[in-house]
Amino acid sequence: MFGSDNQYGVHPKIMDAIVAANNDIAPSYGSDSLTQKANELIQNFFETKEMDIYFVSTGGAANCLSLASLCPNWGAILCHNHAHILLDEGNGPEMFTGGARLIGIGISPKLLPIEVENALLHHDESFVHAPQPKVISITNLNENGLLYSPNEIAQFSAIAKKYGLYLHCDGARFANALVTSAVSPKELSWQSGIDALSFGLTKNGAMLAEAVILFGDARQKATPYLRKTSQQLISKHRFLAAQFIAMLENDLWKDCAQNANKAAQKIAQIFHKNGISPIVPVQGNEIFVELDEKQASKIANANIGFYPWHALGAKAHRFVTSWSSDDNQIQTLEKALED
Amino acid sequence: MFGSDNQYGVHPKIMDAIVAANNDIAPSYGSDSLTQKANELIQNFFETKEMDIYFVSTGGAANCLSLASLCPNWGAILCHNHAHILLDEGNGPEMFTGGARLIGIGISPKLLPIEVENALLHHDESFVHAPQPKVISITNLNENGLLYSPNEIAQFSAIAKKYGLYLHCDGARFANALVTSAVSPKELSWQSGIDALSFGLTKNGAMLAEAVILFGDARQKATPYLRKTSQQLISKHRFLAAQFIAMLENDLWKDCAQNANKAAQKIAQIFHKNGISPIVPVQGNEIFVELDEKQASKIANANIGFYPWHALGAKAHRFVTSWSSDDNQIQTLEKALED
Amino acid sequence: MFGSDNQYGVHPKIMDAIVAANNDIAPSYGSDSLTQKANELIQNFFETKEMDIYFVSTGGAANCLSLASLCPNWGAILCHNHAHILLDEGNGPEMFTGGARLIGIGISPKLLPIEVENALLHHDESFVHAPQPKVISITNLNENGLLYSPNEIAQFSAIAKKYGLYLHCDGARFANALVTSAVSPKELSWQSGIDALSFGLTKNGAMLAEAVILFGDARQKATPYLRKTSQQLISKHRFLAAQFIAMLENDLWKDCAQNANKAAQKIAQIFHKNGISPIVPVQGNEIFVELDEKQASKIANANIGFYPWHALGAKAHRFVTSWSSDDNQIQTLEKALED
Amino acid sequence: MFGSDNQYGVHPKIMDAIVAANNDIAPSYGSDSLTQKANELIQNFFETKEMDIYFVSTGGAANCLSLASLCPNWGAILCHNHAHILLDEGNGPEMFTGGARLIGIGISPKLLPIEVENALLHHDESFVHAPQPKVISITNLNENGLLYSPNEIAQFSAIAKKYGLYLHCDGARFANALVTSAVSPKELSWQSGIDALSFGLTKNGAMLAEAVILFGDARQKATPYLRKTSQQLISKHRFLAAQFIAMLENDLWKDCAQNANKAAQKIAQIFHKNGISPIVPVQGNEIFVELDEKQASKIANANIGFYPWHALGAKAHRFVTSWSSDDNQIQTLEKALED
Repeated sequence: MFGSDNQYGVHPKIMDAIVAANNDIAPSYGSDSLTQKANELIQNFFETKEMDIYFVSTGGAANCLSLASLCPNWGAILCHNHAHILLDEGNGPEMFTGGARLIGIGISPKLLPIEVENALLHHDESFVHAPQPKVISITNLNENGLLYSPNEIAQFSAIAKKYGLYLHCDGARFANALVTSAVSPKELSWQSGIDALSFGLTKNGAMLAEAVILFGDARQKATPYLRKTSQQLISKHRFLAAQFIAMLENDLWKDCAQNANKAAQKIAQIFHKNGISPIVPVQGNEIFVELDEKQASKIANANIGFYPWHALGAKAHRFVTSWSSDDNQIQTLEKALED
Repeated sequence: MFGSDNQYGVHPKIMDAIVAANNDIAPSYGSDSLTQKANELIQNFFETKEMDIYFVSTGGAANCLSLASLCPNWGAILCHNHAHILLDEGNGPEMFTGGARLIGIGISPKLLPIEVENALLHHDESFVHAPQPKVISITNLNENGLLYSPNEIAQFSAIAKKYGLYLHCDGARFANALVTSAVSPKELSWQSGIDALSFGLTKNGAMLAEAVILFGDARQKATPYLRKTSQQLISKHRFLAAQFIAMLENDLWKDCAQNANKAAQKIAQIFHKNGISPIVPVQGNEIFVELDEKQASKIANANIGFYPWHALGAKAHRFVTSWSSDDNQIQTLEKALED
Repeated sequence: MFGSDNQYGVHPKIMDAIVAANNDIAPSYGSDSLTQKANELIQNFFETKEMDIYFVSTGGAANCLSLASLCPNWGAILCHNHAHILLDEGNGPEMFTGGARLIGIGISPKLLPIEVENALLHHDESFVHAPQPKVISITNLNENGLLYSPNEIAQFSAIAKKYGLYLHCDGARFANALVTSAVSPKELSWQSGIDALSFGLTKNGAMLAEAVILFGDARQKATPYLRKTSQQLISKHRFLAAQFIAMLENDLWKDCAQNANKAAQKIAQIFHKNGISPIVPVQGNEIFVELDEKQASKIANANIGFYPWHALGAKAHRFVTSWSSDDNQIQTLEKALED
Repeated sequence: MFGSDNQYGVHPKIMDAIVAANNDIAPSYGSDSLTQKANELIQNFFETKEMDIYFVSTGGAANCLSLASLCPNWGAILCHNHAHILLDEGNGPEMFTGGARLIGIGISPKLLPIEVENALLHHDESFVHAPQPKVISITNLNENGLLYSPNEIAQFSAIAKKYGLYLHCDGARFANALVTSAVSPKELSWQSGIDALSFGLTKNGAMLAEAVILFGDARQKATPYLRKTSQQLISKHRFLAAQFIAMLENDLWKDCAQNANKAAQKIAQIFHKNGISPIVPVQGNEIFVELDEKQASKIANANIGFYPWHALGAKAHRFVTSWSSDDNQIQTLEKALED
């Protein structure tokens, strides 16, 4: 526990929905009625019909397919130096785009709009020798557990528009960001200028439910073909759809994310009580703290999972909570620290 | 029904296994105990430990990752002109390999070893202008429902070895081929010279259970990185593993394939009784027949799914059975034909 | 001699122009005055200003950059089964496009419009599983030495337009085609519907002078970046420009091609006189004949170069003439045959 | 003048050699006798026969083909943040490698071995999520005009070997580096651990003469096919070979580089005399100085070319000398500064 959100299982209601979807013959590759229903629920969730939705099997695939939809093979993607697309998806962005360049920016825990603008300031599209920036990509919650507010997103969007770029958001923890920000899905996406969203529910309690969402003018004719070419068009598609439906109906997504975020706050307090303060504010379901070797050993010995997090310093460590985190788990951590 | 094997649902025992796998926190990305158990069962199934196993989310991904493991971006892959990798996976082989060439061969329903050898006869590796053949790919059962016997596979393998190529097999219907051939998994794979097998169970009753298997000297250091780069490394990996376990334990795979193959034979007889003979022998779970417009309408009107199959002629149509095909469904077809 | 047009040297007037270009400091990468002059001459040659011109270093690069400009990485390019882009450019089209598919069509010496249309007939862009045709590519003169007339080109163009494709022409022997057809450059290109032309002068007597020309609406914003990315933006660009200028000024291109074509006719007559008739009509600077082993030996022993040409049959052989072919060379061949 | 080395023309002896090569029919694609002679001279130059040599048309192509030979599409290339391959070759490294990642390191004017080692320190090849470093690439002289000594190269090589990487050197100004270092070609390449060298002579006075050289165990079976696939196999190959021969015979390369380097020293003194000191030591044919707007205007008004160089600061500017720089040119600069 606390190692990563994807080590936790599947929420029982999601599993029930998967089982219930197994009731008959159904068209494959997304022509089934559950997929249609899931699409409608997603449209309602984001309060717009001006969107294209593509389910895929992993969050990395959602990111890479988003980027491939928006960036030509002679283009470049600006992202944080800690971005998942830069550090944790192998060479996927290159493979999916056919050779686009990732350009890492920034060393503070959050990417700053000014850093992105500085990177674009000297860009001259008549200078063909340099890679051509076409996309800005942010992650929300980002890789250091931090939230970009609608206002901050709008700043990135303004820069993107000014320089003719698209704005992509890796939303592997989008539900946690929604809960923390207390704004609506549309406010945290297209209304603030997000063109493409990797909308992930796997970390929030699904089995495997990730979607590329392209909004408004960012919708591309290429995307259906790129999804197929990247072998991300799932045949028994209804089982993905069922997970989206269960998540969005009755706001299960919110219950899951709230539970995770609340558990993170409790853990932050426990660390604080033990003289360990988070390195960055706890704005979702992740806590980053500095631990010395003795502290780290005590926790590890209690069979609690967590990872070193070099991006925030040599002694930084990450703890992640989930939809299923309970007081029992938290007390185990508390006890380990106090022993 | 009869449209495609992937329109059928998931076998109840598979679904039970998925539900049962949801019992705790487990390491992600394949470090869990279920994945270890699945790997052992697969090794037992193929009676060798000299193999690397990589689970992926689609059959297309299994094919493309296999090819990417075996073929450099300056190489070429020889396959049947009707091959799934050539006709039905977008430009996936190119994307995964970084630009390898597919070369289609043959126009008879099965690829003939002599056709492959003819394509290689004039190949001169010092002539750098031409794409360099590196892989032969067959499909078993192939796209026209036909079986390659161990002896036929061995002929492809001998050619592959003679010219320094690898031999890949798309095994999306490998279980159906095993049942028809009545040989063991090893005889239909590595013992006959298969270097890489796309081992698919989705069409045979799983939800999403596909694997790349590399045998013996064909194992590659690159494959784990290519799986990640292609975004096919599934986070909640245990739910894929559970499907493989359920399929291989107690020979569920065989029950499923036997049911499908038997249903296909029954349907062939019904067609025959109605004066319609299969275009090619029925050697698995697919029946290919010529239908005139009136016949096709009658069947379609009975709400029975099937597809035109131009590869075998302008009037050719394909019917596919599955693990769940029952006499009820078959009688519906019978009645439609007789009406 | 007679082996290939690129075994011949450089026309003295071209060489003089290269030497003359070496007179001063000049801006690099195509910003020099000679490049500007070459562009103007090319515009005059094709009688339009609605064109973008990109010099590159090889004919293969011109083809691959043309295709990369017109075809997305999820698209497909239809071409003759004997096309240079299919058989003689390694996996270049895939590399430059980022993974597009080449689809070979036709087995007669020329690609027929009906064959292309048949390949497109069943294409359904809603079927995302198949590669999506985006370009038709022809070669003029083609690889079997045959000419496509403006009328034939227009037929390909009509099909391209009907199905939403671009039409590309590999013009490695465009000058020879112009001389044979006796029509103007514009008639053999954009007026007949060519969208992109690989305009090659190397085979016609230059040292290294190839250009991608995109006409009208086929001009792409991507091309300058793709040229750079493919490392085809030559630094000392004026030396390429000088060759184009020398070729187009005073119609040197025509003198060169006429000499080559006439020599080919003479050789055809010599073969005919010796009971050997061309397999296909001689419509440019290539002669294709069937030779038995004894005949082939006699010619080879006279130190005359030529190549077997399997595309036109087991005994087919190709002879190529050039701007520098003279009666002396032709008599050597004549004598060899008569000995 | 002083804008870039590739704005200067071609040394007369090189041009003479090109003209002299145009004397007959010769095999194409590198099978000619001049290419053989050039290869032998290059072997003598580097004092080894354990090398593969591939001529290409641009320095960028030499770099990208080197990298494609050494780095798989799932690999990564570590280079300086100012490296030409990172900033000035479009997305070429990605295109040629099929999607490898470039990772920029370091912000001081030279890449430090310790910076490379730090980037590799935490690398764990079992962590498949991250791009896998496979090549270290340095430039010598580097992009800020600085020399890596054999000893420094050996340090990079030791790190490369320790972590299982290859070491590549962009030698677009290798001749200038040789002259400055006063060591032999082998000492500045394979003896110090360089596995692949982009050996460029275009900047040093050739028209278009660049080569990929792979030493010892770094020689790859793939390279001839990758050169063809990248459309860098030049047909009239002898004209490239002639340039290499002329450069290496009678040490023309040294005369050219010495002239350029000496001119740079003179210019440095002139700047110094005018109160402007180089930002970095002048170790080749480039001078980097800070200029205020007034100074920059004065020089520009004298019709002298130079470029702003943001990598070394907001006011930094670069001046480049060449084989043809003479006192006349230098005096023009001197006068401009003093006016």
